[in-house]
Amino acid sequence: MTAKLYCFGESGNAYKAALALELSGMDWEPVHVDFFAGEARTPEFRALNPMGEVPVLIDGDLKLTQSGVIQQYVVDQTGKLAGAPEDRYEVLRWVLWDNHKFSSITGNTRFLMNFLPEDKRPAEVIAFQQGRLKAAYQVLDGHLEGREWMAGESLTMADLSCCSYLYYPEPFGFDRKDWPNIDAWLDRISAVPGWKHPYDMMQRAFPPK
Amino acid sequence: MTAKLYCFGESGNAYKAALALELSGMDWEPVHVDFFAGEARTPEFRALNPMGEVPVLIDGDLKLTQSGVIQQYVVDQTGKLAGAPEDRYEVLRWVLWDNHKFSSITGNTRFLMNFLPEDKRPAEVIAFQQGRLKAAYQVLDGHLEGREWMAGESLTMADLSCCSYLYYPEPFGFDRKDWPNIDAWLDRISAVPGWKHPYDMMQRAFPPK
Repeated sequence: MTAKLYCFGESGNAYKAALALELSGMDWEPVHVDFFAGEARTPEFRALNPMGEVPVLIDGDLKLTQSGVIQQYVVDQTGKLAGAPEDRYEVLRWVLWDNHKFSSITGNTRFLMNFLPEDKRPAEVIAFQQGRLKAAYQVLDGHLEGREWMAGESLTMADLSCCSYLYYPEPFGFDRKDWPNIDAWLDRISAVPGWKHPYDMMQRAFPPK
Repeated sequence: MTAKLYCFGESGNAYKAALALELSGMDWEPVHVDFFAGEARTPEFRALNPMGEVPVLIDGDLKLTQSGVIQQYVVDQTGKLAGAPEDRYEVLRWVLWDNHKFSSITGNTRFLMNFLPEDKRPAEVIAFQQGRLKAAYQVLDGHLEGREWMAGESLTMADLSCCSYLYYPEPFGFDRKDWPNIDAWLDRISAVPGWKHPYDMMQRAFPPK
């Protein structure tokens, strides 16, 4: 049975799930959510996910939300993207760091700077969040010094979590050339056979029609 | 061997780890980090954790960072706080939600409102983050409607993650009486034998001496 991923192109969190599904070879298809037209706030979507967010994965009778949960399910189903058993705490560490300190802020900052009307963009908030992100880029770039992958010796869900917002073209204050270790790591990930850009896997929802 | 948790009282993230260690019955002791005096930014502490953050757990040769990783280690060591096997994705879902949408923002907002000098508190940022938190309280309170615990039928690391900043006395815009399901759930957690308030488990670091 084909698993269905409720998603839209602009969501880096959906991309984490979509990329894990794709690179693991699972049978899946995207279901477009018209996010910017408010579809994630409708009672129908709230019944699917009370958090009002993508991604949501439906696989048979199973419904999963939160990108990291969907990634873990992909790992459990396919045995891929897990890394070595002895690296499992390290994988989880970076998935949590990404959720806590990184894509929670990159995603929101990109939203504020690109998907809000120009006169509604909160300048003080954007500057504050960019300051927090600079500290996060330093942590990420420092960790990748001398390393090929975030955890252990292979591509894992830690890489797919941390990279998620960094391939998008919309500006939010991140420039690959400022961070050479991140830059090289993004090139390594996008060279993995089967890798796709988020806009080549999932339909865009912005601007709303 | 007694595990050592590098922590300080004001850190809700350290509290997540400390409470898991305590309620699971593991042999542990706190090691105070003089955070507000800058100890987490010293080269010595950065060598322990390049992220410059507490908590850090040292158990024999093992070093773990990120509260959710330490919680998972406690679960793996003791078999406690895991919930039923069929609830494991649900437990992970709420740990990730907490990291992504909740304690990442509660912790920072409380920091800005209480631990920065009054003339350095960014009003627009605080108001923005309180708006995001209101949406998160609605998700949490709604989820707890008719439920005793966040995931399944027992106390798990999902509860210990999501509750972490909600017992502190410093104001950040959260009032228990506005959210009756959250209020009752916090009472259930604090009634668990062995529960302790963060300031009764870990030494405070504010104000710096």
